[in-house]
Amino acid sequence: MIHEIAILEIKPGTEDDFELAFAKAGPIFQRAKGCRSMEIQRCIEHPSRYTLVVGWDTVEDHMVGFRESADFLAWRELAGPYFASPPQVTHTRLAARNF
Amino acid sequence: MIHEIAILEIKPGTEDDFELAFAKAGPIFQRAKGCRSMEIQRCIEHPSRYTLVVGWDTVEDHMVGFRESADFLAWRELAGPYFASPPQVTHTRLAARNF
Repeated sequence: MIHEIAILEIKPGTEDDFELAFAKAGPIFQRAKGCRSMEIQRCIEHPSRYTLVVGWDTVEDHMVGFRESADFLAWRELAGPYFASPPQVTHTRLAARNF
Repeated sequence: MIHEIAILEIKPGTEDDFELAFAKAGPIFQRAKGCRSMEIQRCIEHPSRYTLVVGWDTVEDHMVGFRESADFLAWRELAGPYFASPPQVTHTRLAARNF
């Protein structure tokens, strides 16, 4: 499994609306091929900054299977209005865990 | 629990050495008050970029209890030689998980 890491700068004052949109988007991701988990982490120092962390079987499941589907547009329709700037998206793989 | 998120740009070519230093640092963090977990994620698009993710009970456990201890210096002695630039450190709290 790999993780999609998307840094989301949310328009200040719309954080609650964004979190509601995130909750509504659960089924959209859950039915996507290879999608395993989905959470948002909120930055303590910069409370309008969230990190979307989505587990996928492969990068292709995210970048091709999902990004080129109608469900990607549905996700962006839900959450996009709250983005202050375009998300910065990368992917990571667990390198090591000590404990 | 909160997460320390540190973006670590590693000097290209020293990634294996950095991962070995990370493994050696396990006991240093495991004995720190309030430290719950410790892993590194490696960026697929930028393989010299790692994200250190450390679980702490509180921000203070990290920023005061650990950062002001001799063990912080021990960690930096182990891993610091492989940093290409100063780490960028923030903290996050889980806002929501859909699945």
